[in-house]
Amino acid sequence: MTTAQLIEQINLKKSFLCIGLDVDITKIPPHLLEEEDPIFAFNKAIIDATHHLCVSYKPNTAFYEAYGLKGWKSLEKTINYINKNHPEIFTIADAKRGDIGNTSTMYAKAFFDDLSFDSVTVAPYMGKDSVEPFLAFEDKHTIMLALTSNQGAFDFQTKTVDGKELYKQVLETSKLWKNSENLMYVVGATKAEYFTDIRKIVPDSFLLVPGVGAQGGNLQDVCKYGMSKNIGLLINSSRGIIYASNELDFANAAAKKAKELQQEMEEILNQQLD
Amino acid sequence: MTTAQLIEQINLKKSFLCIGLDVDITKIPPHLLEEEDPIFAFNKAIIDATHHLCVSYKPNTAFYEAYGLKGWKSLEKTINYINKNHPEIFTIADAKRGDIGNTSTMYAKAFFDDLSFDSVTVAPYMGKDSVEPFLAFEDKHTIMLALTSNQGAFDFQTKTVDGKELYKQVLETSKLWKNSENLMYVVGATKAEYFTDIRKIVPDSFLLVPGVGAQGGNLQDVCKYGMSKNIGLLINSSRGIIYASNELDFANAAAKKAKELQQEMEEILNQQLD
Repeated sequence: MTTAQLIEQINLKKSFLCIGLDVDITKIPPHLLEEEDPIFAFNKAIIDATHHLCVSYKPNTAFYEAYGLKGWKSLEKTINYINKNHPEIFTIADAKRGDIGNTSTMYAKAFFDDLSFDSVTVAPYMGKDSVEPFLAFEDKHTIMLALTSNQGAFDFQTKTVDGKELYKQVLETSKLWKNSENLMYVVGATKAEYFTDIRKIVPDSFLLVPGVGAQGGNLQDVCKYGMSKNIGLLINSSRGIIYASNELDFANAAAKKAKELQQEMEEILNQQLD
Repeated sequence: MTTAQLIEQINLKKSFLCIGLDVDITKIPPHLLEEEDPIFAFNKAIIDATHHLCVSYKPNTAFYEAYGLKGWKSLEKTINYINKNHPEIFTIADAKRGDIGNTSTMYAKAFFDDLSFDSVTVAPYMGKDSVEPFLAFEDKHTIMLALTSNQGAFDFQTKTVDGKELYKQVLETSKLWKNSENLMYVVGATKAEYFTDIRKIVPDSFLLVPGVGAQGGNLQDVCKYGMSKNIGLLINSSRGIIYASNELDFANAAAKKAKELQQEMEEILNQQLD
């Protein structure tokens, strides 16, 4: 999917919501455990109920790998289901991968070719030659960690490197990499005031923003400081939506939560047009 | 496996060699492609021929994920084969994972519980709460990227943070984390002179050292500057060993290359005793 197509979908759906499919089998409604593949059954119900309210789904690979082969199969079925039934959805493999050159190419093949995701998240620590192999794929997007929403973000990311914070150094350096137009960035919502500085470095890039809701971030603030002229934001919510209810009606409950966020986003988008 | 058991194996085998099982299906002997699972068939032959010469195997997960479900199955068969037939081998899942707390726990479960690896490699960018979930597993080891052997290492890792290089900051900070005694570190062999400074920060920790051979690092230099009083080194070689030959005798050729490294290591260990 191209960035232009993603922007078109945002304007069409009046939503820049990304739903995180972080499925912990101990948290899903108990009646699903009778299904042959409870994780896929859960995802399918969530997708059926919410696909018109969001523009993106983001399975975090950890939740699938934890169940070994069965988990990887659930991931494959989930991405295939989305791609077949909702090809307009921007899919993100939240994998936070990164390795030396030829090895990163293998990861890129895994997520872009084998599983046909539109994008994958990567870690910046190993630098240019660990990320460029991902950027070489046409109409695929590489979402690099810049400033994450966890407490550990302050261990290294906000430390000063050659006069500026490491996450700013990461943003600036990455702009020089080959095919850097295929880069997006992860920026946590828990620090909305940081978006002003970030937008000075990457005015147009899409930012994937976790941490709204469960982790305490505020949607209005993020949009105020972080929105670009082409929106440029994908706001992720995982637990707040998918675990809205643990009962038979869990998918409806998830849709209700997604709808609340979508409507808040619609208001913000309408204000922008005024 | 405990660190004491690993040291015992090193002294017993006179080897601190780790063989990287980075299996690219386009590089293995063509006759194996007739096998039902060529990747596992390749690994099994390499393991059968080399297990007495090395103390560790390190499959890089990228090479398995690239083949989707089939690849994950090959990985599972490989680790099960090692654990069943050679439980004295220290196994490393070279996965370079890292995510926020509860998600890192899922990765830890994937590699420590589901696949029963002794250790996993992780990336430091997300800080303390992304790594501590791995450290919580008893007799399991978390091998954190410090200074990698690729060109991109100079993009961020060697940049100065609060007066010292980022990789040194990563080493020092991580020593304060809970269960930090379960930490080992990745330090590339291409910069042997850096080991002196690294040993000032982590005098006793095991270092996993890629970059000997194919990437140009020198074993003698690494040992001179990097060896601790309990050896404290695992030297990895992947391509130099496993792709030594592409013919029917590939496993013997791999064993020959492994033997060369093992003998060089035995000499170094004997010199240490003098």
